[in-house]
Amino acid sequence: MIDVPVALLGYGTVGSAVDRLLEQSAGDIERATGHRLRVVRALVRDVAGDRPHKPAPGILTADFADIVEDDSIAVVAEVMGGIEPTGDHVLELLRRGKPVVSANKQLIAQRGAELFAAALAGGVQLRFEASVCAAIPVIKVLRESLVVSNVHRILGIVNGTTNFILTEMESGASYEEALAEAQRLGFAEADPTEDVSGADAAAKMAILATVAFGSRVTLADVEHEGIQGITPSHVAAAREMDLAVRLIGAATLVGDRLDVRVHPALVDRHHPLASVEGAFNAVMLQGDAIREITLEGPGAGGLETASAVVADMVSVIGTTGTGFLQNDACWRELGKLPPGELRSPFYVQIDVDDRAGVLAHVAERLAAHGISVARLVQHQSNGGATLHMVTHEAPSGQIAAALAEIGKLPETRKEPSALRVISDRGVSGLGWA
Amino acid sequence: MIDVPVALLGYGTVGSAVDRLLEQSAGDIERATGHRLRVVRALVRDVAGDRPHKPAPGILTADFADIVEDDSIAVVAEVMGGIEPTGDHVLELLRRGKPVVSANKQLIAQRGAELFAAALAGGVQLRFEASVCAAIPVIKVLRESLVVSNVHRILGIVNGTTNFILTEMESGASYEEALAEAQRLGFAEADPTEDVSGADAAAKMAILATVAFGSRVTLADVEHEGIQGITPSHVAAAREMDLAVRLIGAATLVGDRLDVRVHPALVDRHHPLASVEGAFNAVMLQGDAIREITLEGPGAGGLETASAVVADMVSVIGTTGTGFLQNDACWRELGKLPPGELRSPFYVQIDVDDRAGVLAHVAERLAAHGISVARLVQHQSNGGATLHMVTHEAPSGQIAAALAEIGKLPETRKEPSALRVISDRGVSGLGWA
Repeated sequence: MIDVPVALLGYGTVGSAVDRLLEQSAGDIERATGHRLRVVRALVRDVAGDRPHKPAPGILTADFADIVEDDSIAVVAEVMGGIEPTGDHVLELLRRGKPVVSANKQLIAQRGAELFAAALAGGVQLRFEASVCAAIPVIKVLRESLVVSNVHRILGIVNGTTNFILTEMESGASYEEALAEAQRLGFAEADPTEDVSGADAAAKMAILATVAFGSRVTLADVEHEGIQGITPSHVAAAREMDLAVRLIGAATLVGDRLDVRVHPALVDRHHPLASVEGAFNAVMLQGDAIREITLEGPGAGGLETASAVVADMVSVIGTTGTGFLQNDACWRELGKLPPGELRSPFYVQIDVDDRAGVLAHVAERLAAHGISVARLVQHQSNGGATLHMVTHEAPSGQIAAALAEIGKLPETRKEPSALRVISDRGVSGLGWA
Repeated sequence: MIDVPVALLGYGTVGSAVDRLLEQSAGDIERATGHRLRVVRALVRDVAGDRPHKPAPGILTADFADIVEDDSIAVVAEVMGGIEPTGDHVLELLRRGKPVVSANKQLIAQRGAELFAAALAGGVQLRFEASVCAAIPVIKVLRESLVVSNVHRILGIVNGTTNFILTEMESGASYEEALAEAQRLGFAEADPTEDVSGADAAAKMAILATVAFGSRVTLADVEHEGIQGITPSHVAAAREMDLAVRLIGAATLVGDRLDVRVHPALVDRHHPLASVEGAFNAVMLQGDAIREITLEGPGAGGLETASAVVADMVSVIGTTGTGFLQNDACWRELGKLPPGELRSPFYVQIDVDDRAGVLAHVAERLAAHGISVARLVQHQSNGGATLHMVTHEAPSGQIAAALAEIGKLPETRKEPSALRVISDRGVSGLGWA
């Protein structure tokens, strides 16, 4: 048995949970690695501050030098969050040859290139399982289990707050009611923008796409659209067509170009992502050799995140000195797919006057852009009609162009809206074009 | 870059796919490990035999000594199947210090103790990801990602054939029709006994329980019941109560005793396992630090299995020399929970005469065994009635005792039947006792 001193940057909810897990599970870790991991230092702003969980005496320090200059420390877990000074601390640790594991999605998504360059320079590992979907081990599975699977598509529900809100809306709540309930239960912040806008999901998708495709994707590369525009009418129309509204992160490799985006989508009821309920997350990985593998679980939580941090520390200790996974996941530069070229089936909602010839006009505009319709439901309402359509696969640019033209028809009552549809089995049903 | 010679035992569907994956993915593997893996030997019975996929010249051999005595070979993949002579080959390889990865569930489930002792003696790893659920990386996740999670329960759909049959029955097929369709599509063997009896699932659950609980569970320890007795009436009753019939492997740690079994069960529609359709597999891992994580994917297939074999070879190469996961997953001996003590909600079906007082008699027998009923549906049919009940959680022994008594009531028309119910949320509904 070898005693392995480790350090934490941060001693909040996650940091203190890491400390306790390492202590409680010392036997499990020793069986897996032959080593006993013990927290000897934890960086905090205020050593004297009041803490719900007390660390062992003498562990807390406000001086980063106590960690970076302590040669006995074998691995450091970054659980303090934020970009500054966190990023500079992590850079210095890596450059000086200390392996780091991080739970910080913004840091990895925004400064990944620098950090991995520093890890390479220092000859050490930077692991980041906890930065995406907490304890769901999607990074390890992508890097170690699917190494020969040519993963070419990732579909994920990677934000629990929005999934909770959408699930509540399926039970009849309005968006505002569902958001208020999420806030009451602690699933949403007082300012929920980061979650409901899709920005949080975008950072996670940037990390997943980088790992899966081996080409750097930063937060700025990920277009994202949130769920603020989802109304009970979308949810009801989806249900009627055996679909469910979900906020989907989609990363796609098309030839040697990639496309990474976050948007609300309608998911076929039989698709594994449609059954993900409440604050849970799920990630589906599609590859040549594996067809598809889906991982589902809680995507947040202090203990869950700490569990992933400890698993990374264990993996660092268990592979140190072998060269295994010391490298950046990036090894090539893929171009981005031009906007508008990514193909998908779409759900389209169009409010029109209810009179003869309207459907023909709409159909004509769709056909002019090569779009064919798989399913159509029409609802009458005070002199007008709402058309709910699911199209066959079409480039998003053609959908946008057709809807722009339809929006200008005199019989169209308001701007048409469109959502991507996710289905394993193509879309089927009434065909007309 | 270091050239790493590897060998295969067997060169059938999986073996040839491993050979091709190693060649096609040489770059990916080199990026992950720093090494280039290359098949230099493959053991077959008949070197001259006709093969759909031709290996490189000179690789095939019928002489095991060509592999075991070649000191350059760094890792061997066992993809030949069977217990003999496979087991003796693997034992000899391990004893002589060659790491082995195996895709052989029967070998691991039946001879695990010997094999891991040999690996310990030889100071090498024995990995076996492909032995359970093909490319779904449940072994790696249990051993490396959930090392501190205290997994105390595993629920799995680990046999694709039976899941396909049950899904077909949900679409209206009889058991015989569904089985015939599975055979036509190649999901079921001409003799489907191994699958439909639950024996195949039992071997996989033995392996999963061993890894999760750290105590040896062999095939003989796993009680199993198949799906041969499932009728359209079970499937229809399940649907009516918002449940789905699935063949479930359940491994449970109760204090310091364990219970591992395979049986058909009714699964709540909102439970992640209820949405697993067709020949797919899924495994839910429940633990202290992670709540629950579910992995879903194809549980069989030559390429999928080969992908898991290669991932294991990569992991062996990437951790050799560190002591990481060299040990047997077993480190303790847990007792078995006495039969009848495992608690669960149950679905009970009872055919009775349709006259006053019958329900009271049935209810009285249930109450005498401490069983309370959560949901009740009654169907009339030619002078009789069928009671469909879902009970609250009760020990299986009490359910069996109560049903034995109910079976002897003069108004009971045939032997009552019972199936376990799996629900995240307890069972709710009309309560009476």
